[in-house]
Amino acid sequence: MSKLNKTIARTPEPPYYAVIFTSLLFSEVEGYDDMAIEMNALAAKQAGFLGVETAWDSSVFGITVSYWKDEESILAWKNNADHQWAQKLGKEKWYQSYSLRIAKVERAYGADKKSG
Amino acid sequence: MSKLNKTIARTPEPPYYAVIFTSLLFSEVEGYDDMAIEMNALAAKQAGFLGVETAWDSSVFGITVSYWKDEESILAWKNNADHQWAQKLGKEKWYQSYSLRIAKVERAYGADKKSG
Repeated sequence: MSKLNKTIARTPEPPYYAVIFTSLLFSEVEGYDDMAIEMNALAAKQAGFLGVETAWDSSVFGITVSYWKDEESILAWKNNADHQWAQKLGKEKWYQSYSLRIAKVERAYGADKKSG
Repeated sequence: MSKLNKTIARTPEPPYYAVIFTSLLFSEVEGYDDMAIEMNALAAKQAGFLGVETAWDSSVFGITVSYWKDEESILAWKNNADHQWAQKLGKEKWYQSYSLRIAKVERAYGADKKSG
């Protein structure tokens, strides 16, 4: 999944929301990374979107965390995303297992040496 | 980071806590995955530990999400982990940037075709 952005999301001060999506594919899916990029781009256009981070380990195990202003934004995104996913081939068959967790970020710390 | 477990954490019903650690290394660090495995194993022995998920993209960008019963468990783990990190070479020099977010998981969904 080498085409995906390798950046840490610049989120505002908490509180805000995180959607933690962890998935294990049955096998490498051709075009999956293109679709993931497209889905992330679509998320970025959504109201309340704060940022997204994605890491794929050996093309079958991945974690995507997207950040949102509030639960309403997540719900709106979910409805939109479900629709898009359904339009692209049936996602169900790709996943051996997945987990989606919705969490309220209460505290955050970090450092970025590039920006000082 | 091919040695790390590619599994989705089996967590109980929410609420519980998530620690989302996203990091970008300056370059590939020799022995980093061994140390990550060791740190995850250490976390697993900690009171209140519920599970951990780690994905590394091209050995420099990674997301690790660990799950905990409550904030007290996280604090105890943080103190222990900081001590361990300090003992191994100075972690500071590895990271171009990192972000640590503490979040309360409110809802969770998932599916696992292996276990039915």
